[in-house]
Amino acid sequence: MSEQPELTIQGWGPSGSAAEREPRDEPDLGAALPKPARRYLAKELGWTPRSTPPVAVADIRLAPSRLPEEARTVLVGLLGEANVRTDREARLRRAGGKSYLDLLRRREGDASDAPDAVVSPGTTEETAALLGACSELGVVVVPFGGGTSVVGGLAGIDPDDRPSIAVDLGRMASVQALDVPSSLVTVGPGMRGPALEHELAREGLTFGHLPQSWEFATVGGYAATRSAGQASTGVGRFDDLVAGLTLATPSGVLELGHPPASAAGPDLLGLALGSEGTLGVITELRLRVRPTPSASSYEGWSFRSWAAGLAAIQQLARNDLLPDVVRLSDSDETRTNLLMAAGTGARALRTTLRARGHGEGCLLVLGWEGLPAMLRARSRTAASLLRDGGGTRLGRRVGESWRKHRFQAPYLRDTLLDAGLMVETLETAATWSALPTVYDAVRRALRESLTRDGRRPLVMSHVSHGYPTGASLYVTVVADRDDDLPIQQWLSAKRAATDALLGAGGTLTHHHAVGADHRPWLEREIGPLGVEVLRAVKERLDPNGICNPGVLLPD
Amino acid sequence: MSEQPELTIQGWGPSGSAAEREPRDEPDLGAALPKPARRYLAKELGWTPRSTPPVAVADIRLAPSRLPEEARTVLVGLLGEANVRTDREARLRRAGGKSYLDLLRRREGDASDAPDAVVSPGTTEETAALLGACSELGVVVVPFGGGTSVVGGLAGIDPDDRPSIAVDLGRMASVQALDVPSSLVTVGPGMRGPALEHELAREGLTFGHLPQSWEFATVGGYAATRSAGQASTGVGRFDDLVAGLTLATPSGVLELGHPPASAAGPDLLGLALGSEGTLGVITELRLRVRPTPSASSYEGWSFRSWAAGLAAIQQLARNDLLPDVVRLSDSDETRTNLLMAAGTGARALRTTLRARGHGEGCLLVLGWEGLPAMLRARSRTAASLLRDGGGTRLGRRVGESWRKHRFQAPYLRDTLLDAGLMVETLETAATWSALPTVYDAVRRALRESLTRDGRRPLVMSHVSHGYPTGASLYVTVVADRDDDLPIQQWLSAKRAATDALLGAGGTLTHHHAVGADHRPWLEREIGPLGVEVLRAVKERLDPNGICNPGVLLPD
Repeated sequence: MSEQPELTIQGWGPSGSAAEREPRDEPDLGAALPKPARRYLAKELGWTPRSTPPVAVADIRLAPSRLPEEARTVLVGLLGEANVRTDREARLRRAGGKSYLDLLRRREGDASDAPDAVVSPGTTEETAALLGACSELGVVVVPFGGGTSVVGGLAGIDPDDRPSIAVDLGRMASVQALDVPSSLVTVGPGMRGPALEHELAREGLTFGHLPQSWEFATVGGYAATRSAGQASTGVGRFDDLVAGLTLATPSGVLELGHPPASAAGPDLLGLALGSEGTLGVITELRLRVRPTPSASSYEGWSFRSWAAGLAAIQQLARNDLLPDVVRLSDSDETRTNLLMAAGTGARALRTTLRARGHGEGCLLVLGWEGLPAMLRARSRTAASLLRDGGGTRLGRRVGESWRKHRFQAPYLRDTLLDAGLMVETLETAATWSALPTVYDAVRRALRESLTRDGRRPLVMSHVSHGYPTGASLYVTVVADRDDDLPIQQWLSAKRAATDALLGAGGTLTHHHAVGADHRPWLEREIGPLGVEVLRAVKERLDPNGICNPGVLLPD
Repeated sequence: MSEQPELTIQGWGPSGSAAEREPRDEPDLGAALPKPARRYLAKELGWTPRSTPPVAVADIRLAPSRLPEEARTVLVGLLGEANVRTDREARLRRAGGKSYLDLLRRREGDASDAPDAVVSPGTTEETAALLGACSELGVVVVPFGGGTSVVGGLAGIDPDDRPSIAVDLGRMASVQALDVPSSLVTVGPGMRGPALEHELAREGLTFGHLPQSWEFATVGGYAATRSAGQASTGVGRFDDLVAGLTLATPSGVLELGHPPASAAGPDLLGLALGSEGTLGVITELRLRVRPTPSASSYEGWSFRSWAAGLAAIQQLARNDLLPDVVRLSDSDETRTNLLMAAGTGARALRTTLRARGHGEGCLLVLGWEGLPAMLRARSRTAASLLRDGGGTRLGRRVGESWRKHRFQAPYLRDTLLDAGLMVETLETAATWSALPTVYDAVRRALRESLTRDGRRPLVMSHVSHGYPTGASLYVTVVADRDDDLPIQQWLSAKRAATDALLGAGGTLTHHHAVGADHRPWLEREIGPLGVEVLRAVKERLDPNGICNPGVLLPD
């Protein structure tokens, strides 16, 4: 059994944390947001700080479970009474994910996307039997790992409106085997990053996948959504780190992947990665691990302009000199981050940057990890290219500060939502050639959509995953919330931004996955025949369409 | 139009070369094989050198084309008269590939696997129209790139015995676009390595994919078979280097891949890679290129034993210190290579190794490429680990000698075949933990199968592609040929070796692909449900089963 903390129902953080105290009358802005930042946001956005707390958890509306008694009996027969739950607590905690829209609904007291039951299989065999039974019973199955999706991956929408269950993978959350010479660990899908790192550390190993959701997300979820982490530039995307996996489907069990590499036909492992629960449930993973780096160094750099910063990291990329972590903020994000960071260090840095003509500059965080000799050679060779590109080294303090706060943003979001703000992110990736166009197009679309009555959004961007051929682009949007139509406000902006980024050559998503939110655009990404190929695979493995029907594939 | 030389019909090398001179009465052993090597092989194998030349090319039997006149008229309507050929020369040159079995057949005068016609589309649109027409006409389509398959990838076998055509991609063999900032080149599938490198060199770029078939194989073929090259440890396998491709199928055209990376669902690009023509024809590729390395260094090392050598490169692998080229020969291959290498250098090296107690040792070739500072740091840090593992550095001469002869083996094979020898290779990959077991199992199986009447095979192995989780294993077998039943002799040995390597945990193929030769084992590799998934995809894209039906999927 997993002893990993659950997420709070209406926001981010472990259950029982501040975000779950209820009701909250006054937003606690002072603690999270220094006064200069509050003044800055109010002026920038035309925002009036106000109290917009969520409803009490006890007041969240939850319809009775629709799971037929006959189906419940079958599931209990397979998994045992304790592993088939229909109680309010269990269902509420598996309702949807953690996108802005998810939080809006939960804060308004809407849990209409909650599953009718929560079941917890303990093995691959139990999961396969469960899927076979649900296929016969006509019960929709939504795999549940950490519940951190930000694209509606747990929406549970079914065109036929059948009853649905969340398959919680918390009982399959341990290390099952460790092959040290081959740098491979076999783990259950419900395992989270902290527990995995804890187990590996005993052997002097690390996994190193560190998305912002690291405290709560699971390895099964990472695989199902093609996650990328903050150090993916160095250690690789999550899909690069999966050497094999077991996929239980309504039609049987697939064992996929043959490390280290194979030329035995098309890549079926790559079909399971990113399948978002539409083909079945991932029940086991073989992951590549590595020795714990014996040295690490995080440092800050500054560039006068976004274009100069991009050109410099593109030079690193083409020369195979990218660091493990690379994060270039545009001037809007740089300015905002420096204002949000309380303390004299940030003030001093602002002064320094202004003095050097970098007042409207872009901050670059680089993180290096590895053997000391290699780290030195890489960072020195890279530094020389960065200086050639106009970069100024700011030293380790900036880098270490970023590292310290790397998982903080989702916590801050709850505070901002309490105070009448809209906060959401979106992301894409493009080739180095297309990236500037994509950047301009997304910003323009968001600004046009979210400007109204003298209020305008703050659109902040950074590049955070570098590749030889291009990079990801991550965009954070903050705006005064439309209290009457908050959902429509964001949906319009998201639609405009997505149309814009696809039109400019970006990909639909670099690491958030498709979910329910992006599926109207999947055909634009992979073409109608591509969608047909995915449908053919789904029909073979899930003939009754019970596996997470609300995501990925368009209706 | 491509001006790339065609391969000779009965062996390796450009058409018109020595291998195509006919008839050959006496094997020219002296030039290719120094006397000590000949004596060594005769003793080791129980082999009597004898003349076993191929039949004259003019005497190869070729059945009349079975392409119906109606079908020919349709194809001519689509592609023009000049691009639909049924002449003997065109058909013979597209008959099969270059495996030992292919060569045996062609040397015996058998061309029963020749296509009924050879067609040459010039564009994606023409290829798609061609596939649509062939699907209606019931004509089997075998894509033809360089014709270098060693696993029966061009066998053209059809359970329904329909007429077949080779789709020669030689007209689609040029660079179509180069995006230097994004390190991406767009090329036609018929392009070969030398021409591609020539075009890229003008821009200071290189592609760097260097399989032994480099002089003749095409990029479309590399993609269709998941090729790996001699420098794949450094630059990546071919599948890692494909950022996108266009696949023309009987059901329409797929545009796959979205560089630099995407989380928009399952990886359809990975389904096309390794599809071996069974889903359609690859008509365009976007490949990742890199700056031409400004420094390179190839060096030799020696280890007392295979186990010590393996352990040492596993240490490099886990510490992310593998060179661009890594090639560890076992003691059988080391001894043979040193005897085959004529000249005083090889003799002196043998003496040196004996003096150091490495008389039965294993040779390791390492190749480093890149920026000078990085090359120095990598090779020095690696050298320290190699010395800790018992390695002795032999210097650059050994490394440079390997580099000079890197494409020679297939030429030598023709000479050996002329002299009564059986010569074939096979390959696999396994995790570092499983590799020693796979190695033992394959050697035992080959020795048992090929030992008869006091004659026994020479089985030589090397590891040539390293990964963090394991490595490839490449095996060369030489034996006295069974002149009565040469095909059965090899088929029995191949069957025994394949059963053995799969049983020990190896993959069916690391870079030769499945073809006709490995397809009986595909189900063991990916499971019956995995085969069903591939069939579902094929049925959607190729409903009439005209796309290379003789390969990949079992009957």
